[in-house]
Amino acid sequence: MDRLQLIQPEPGQSRYAALAAALRARIVAGEWPPGSAIPAEQTLAAEHGVALGTMRRALELLTEQGFIERVHGRGTFVKPALSGGSLLRFFRFGDGSGQAPASRILARETLPAPAEVARTLGMGPGEPALRLRRLRLLAQQPCLLEEIWLPLPLFEALAEGDPADWGDLLYPLFAQRCGVHVHRAVDTIGFGSLGAEQARALALPPGHPCARVQRQAFDLAGHCIEARTTLGDANAFHYTVSIT
Amino acid sequence: MDRLQLIQPEPGQSRYAALAAALRARIVAGEWPPGSAIPAEQTLAAEHGVALGTMRRALELLTEQGFIERVHGRGTFVKPALSGGSLLRFFRFGDGSGQAPASRILARETLPAPAEVARTLGMGPGEPALRLRRLRLLAQQPCLLEEIWLPLPLFEALAEGDPADWGDLLYPLFAQRCGVHVHRAVDTIGFGSLGAEQARALALPPGHPCARVQRQAFDLAGHCIEARTTLGDANAFHYTVSIT
Repeated sequence: MDRLQLIQPEPGQSRYAALAAALRARIVAGEWPPGSAIPAEQTLAAEHGVALGTMRRALELLTEQGFIERVHGRGTFVKPALSGGSLLRFFRFGDGSGQAPASRILARETLPAPAEVARTLGMGPGEPALRLRRLRLLAQQPCLLEEIWLPLPLFEALAEGDPADWGDLLYPLFAQRCGVHVHRAVDTIGFGSLGAEQARALALPPGHPCARVQRQAFDLAGHCIEARTTLGDANAFHYTVSIT
Repeated sequence: MDRLQLIQPEPGQSRYAALAAALRARIVAGEWPPGSAIPAEQTLAAEHGVALGTMRRALELLTEQGFIERVHGRGTFVKPALSGGSLLRFFRFGDGSGQAPASRILARETLPAPAEVARTLGMGPGEPALRLRRLRLLAQQPCLLEEIWLPLPLFEALAEGDPADWGDLLYPLFAQRCGVHVHRAVDTIGFGSLGAEQARALALPPGHPCARVQRQAFDLAGHCIEARTTLGDANAFHYTVSIT
């Protein structure tokens, strides 16, 4: 930054909350990319013309909100983007070697978004969206079947080219090709049974019990940029939650 | 405290880590009960004969470890004990009014702990433990069936008296009757199907798909004081996970 950025709290807003909002805007604008260090407290305080104590409270608020993380003795960093691949943590497959699953795109289509998908992605119903069907495999065995909806035109770079070149992880691809960083995701777990086509893709009998994980992924600005449904064998489902 | 408690770091241990261990020992010993405020930083620094900055780093470490929480403008508090009842958050039952489920103890027995339960609870195999079978109901409808193992003699106060007097929540009961505060729990979610007796208790057909939540609950000192298995209708299972 070249010049002093003075903070104007809105009525009823504290000075440090207004400062936190200003810092958040700098993160969202890409001034400090995910994973990078932000400047020292003293530098930031001088840039915004505030006392060091006010800057510290603003940084504490951003830490609580999950935008930055403070690492003892190393500094303060913008939270790294999610790398994807984490849906597998819901399942116990294979030999437990922790190997990353391979990815195979079964279909890629541009379609009018169904009402629920449109609502989730903040689009008008029937507006065009990209739908991916993806199979994930461990040791050549199919384990997860995914239906992924992405809003257009944000993801139009993925409407072209050969999906075989995409690699196994989508989130790094979203960042490289579309400039979209996944900051946060919400997964909702349920159980159901497989339809005939789903069962065929997963090499399981039709009607077999399945776990269903519905994901909404959000960018730094808080927009939902992905609606995903993942299906896998219910008998392989296994998830650990810590409560404090 | 009546006198200065000087900190002696162990070889290789930093001064603030030794200080954090000393504060943790005061919490575990019950000097500040769960949910209570701890003294001001300055007071604690004086009690332990350390600089304010060292005390702040020790308190940051205890916050990261989940023993205390700092509330903006209010102070620093020992994390409140878990209140229980939280297993219901895995299921979507009834009218969504958020009412607490009723509790019915179906059986209470003192039995030799099976090998796996003994291992979990840190007991010798075959040592006596208390086994509870408990049904949880919403609007008089059975929704969860629980098998709960508790170590003896820690929980011997629950081996006597009428369970009908226990109320609907176990963790406040653990605190009142046995002096056990549940600080942390780990739930592992899996999928299965109901045996005949389980199905009857839950008013579902035998073989019906069920979600199975296995809980280990820990006290402040980190000892596992409860091993619980909860079963419920897989079709009512619904759990949301936030990933940042």
